[in-house]
Amino acid sequence: MLIENQHYRTVWYDDTTRQVAMINQNKLPFVFELVYFKTYQETAEAIRDMTVRGAGAIGATAGFAMAQAFDTTGDLVKIQEARAYIEATRPTAVNLFYATEKVFNAGKEHRNSAMVAAQQIADEDAEGCRLIGEYGNTLIKPSGRILTHCNAGWLAFVDYGSALSPVYAAHNAGKQPFVYVDETRPRGQGARLTAYELEQNKVDHRIIADNAAAYYMAKGAIDMVITGADRITANGDVANKIGTLEKAILAKEFGIPFYVAAPFSTFDFNTPSGDMIVIEERSDEELLYHEGPDEHNIIRKIRMAAPGSAGLNPAFDVTPHRYITGFITNRGIIRPDELKGYQ
Amino acid sequence: MLIENQHYRTVWYDDTTRQVAMINQNKLPFVFELVYFKTYQETAEAIRDMTVRGAGAIGATAGFAMAQAFDTTGDLVKIQEARAYIEATRPTAVNLFYATEKVFNAGKEHRNSAMVAAQQIADEDAEGCRLIGEYGNTLIKPSGRILTHCNAGWLAFVDYGSALSPVYAAHNAGKQPFVYVDETRPRGQGARLTAYELEQNKVDHRIIADNAAAYYMAKGAIDMVITGADRITANGDVANKIGTLEKAILAKEFGIPFYVAAPFSTFDFNTPSGDMIVIEERSDEELLYHEGPDEHNIIRKIRMAAPGSAGLNPAFDVTPHRYITGFITNRGIIRPDELKGYQ
Repeated sequence: MLIENQHYRTVWYDDTTRQVAMINQNKLPFVFELVYFKTYQETAEAIRDMTVRGAGAIGATAGFAMAQAFDTTGDLVKIQEARAYIEATRPTAVNLFYATEKVFNAGKEHRNSAMVAAQQIADEDAEGCRLIGEYGNTLIKPSGRILTHCNAGWLAFVDYGSALSPVYAAHNAGKQPFVYVDETRPRGQGARLTAYELEQNKVDHRIIADNAAAYYMAKGAIDMVITGADRITANGDVANKIGTLEKAILAKEFGIPFYVAAPFSTFDFNTPSGDMIVIEERSDEELLYHEGPDEHNIIRKIRMAAPGSAGLNPAFDVTPHRYITGFITNRGIIRPDELKGYQ
Repeated sequence: MLIENQHYRTVWYDDTTRQVAMINQNKLPFVFELVYFKTYQETAEAIRDMTVRGAGAIGATAGFAMAQAFDTTGDLVKIQEARAYIEATRPTAVNLFYATEKVFNAGKEHRNSAMVAAQQIADEDAEGCRLIGEYGNTLIKPSGRILTHCNAGWLAFVDYGSALSPVYAAHNAGKQPFVYVDETRPRGQGARLTAYELEQNKVDHRIIADNAAAYYMAKGAIDMVITGADRITANGDVANKIGTLEKAILAKEFGIPFYVAAPFSTFDFNTPSGDMIVIEERSDEELLYHEGPDEHNIIRKIRMAAPGSAGLNPAFDVTPHRYITGFITNRGIIRPDELKGYQ
């Protein structure tokens, strides 16, 4: 997608310099910076310190890191060490393990195949997201008004994104979508990343407080909701950023379609239902403090809450499948009750 | 209520110095400061610049300001000027006009009666809120877990508050209430003022992102919701801080009682329903920027959102009466369908 009118992926292999290149997402949306890594250790570190984030983007990065290891050595013991090093960076990211395994197996056969396999992972991620956009676009009316939560845009993948891919497809097809962007407290990924993406790609949008969604739904100003997903269980329950459940319930109350967009790699058919998912409770620092630039563009960290008070900070919630109209996937639009056919 | 173990009202008349005293709410929760005003102009200015805020507290302050005018002159032309000056500070605050009229009429009869009438307004506000607490306490279980939105605590009134008064009554009665405090974006009155009040009065509480309410409801961790109200129409529809409607819908979905606590002065029986209420859309600056102390306790203003993107910022929403279990008032607990008997 576009940044300053130039096309970028979130992460790619730069053939000329033989380095892994990526957008430094720790500096977005206030600074746009590209970073380059020569070694698999550096690339793995970029996963750990969240220079790159989002399931698809992490997977592609891990694949490139694994290929970088094969670039420097053919010694399988050292390669195994590299694999463990890469896999330790974000041990809960499913896509990461898929990528290291695939590239490892390819490189083990023919050392030169490692980078080909890594490139394939990145390309498949982008193509899957492009297809989500194609399918999702069929649901968007000419001036469709869409609410989204958190960032399931192209910055979380290699390109196009999941929840935002249909919006980009609609925009590119000459429709005029309008996006209500949930701020998405506590970390503000909506206000920061989704708004940034939409602004850079010239899609009309406004940021709203997470509190304002029902107000616009009650006014009839929202036609549909599209969010991403961290994990979708066999029965169609969806684990996603905290607040997704609230939006799903509100959408149901107002009779507004609620779609979850995700590539098939997000489906976890081994877990029967969302009840089995353990929700991570994160530090309340994310809620009580916030960082951003002051008027001199110096990044400051301020306290958002009364001194002395503590917070609770669940990172995700589970939206039961009964609130979900459909899944927008790279294999088409699927209703929750149709999922059985795909397992 | 208590601040640093001392009892305070938000605003009072200091007989010794013949000044109006109040807590400077612009500095809360990071600095606790008392300010004193000798003239009605200074006191009125404190309403305008939000040194004092909240319906009940503004009404009491306006009454004291009107009484200060009678302290300096018996000339009714000048008194009329003072009244207009005071009333211009917050022209949408109903309690303000009630207070200036009452004190004006009292002072017109006997100049000395003005301050008596002003004191009575403050005392009636406190007593009304105390009664809300008494009635509301009957609804709170021994270890009741209550969700509240925004700040309808004693800082918005003269004492006790509306939504928080039942919590304080339960706490003082030896129950152990636990309060989930909605952060209440964009202005964060929950995280800042409600949390501050509860912390100072030693009521157990945690701040949560507005996004997390459904998560805790789904877990069965919330027994009831209590919010305040800016205005309640004849049919029981409630205008209140943006996000109230979301919490009410979620509470209904999870079968959790949703109460609105307010003194009878909040009921507007001349407006048949909430459809008639025009919602103020405020500047998106409140959403896109935020102020708070940095690690050196210097107040900084940071940008919360991507550069270039704009926001929408409706200040209030309207919760239809069908979502409301009951009103906790100074005249008892009233179901929406019982309101007709009070008009």
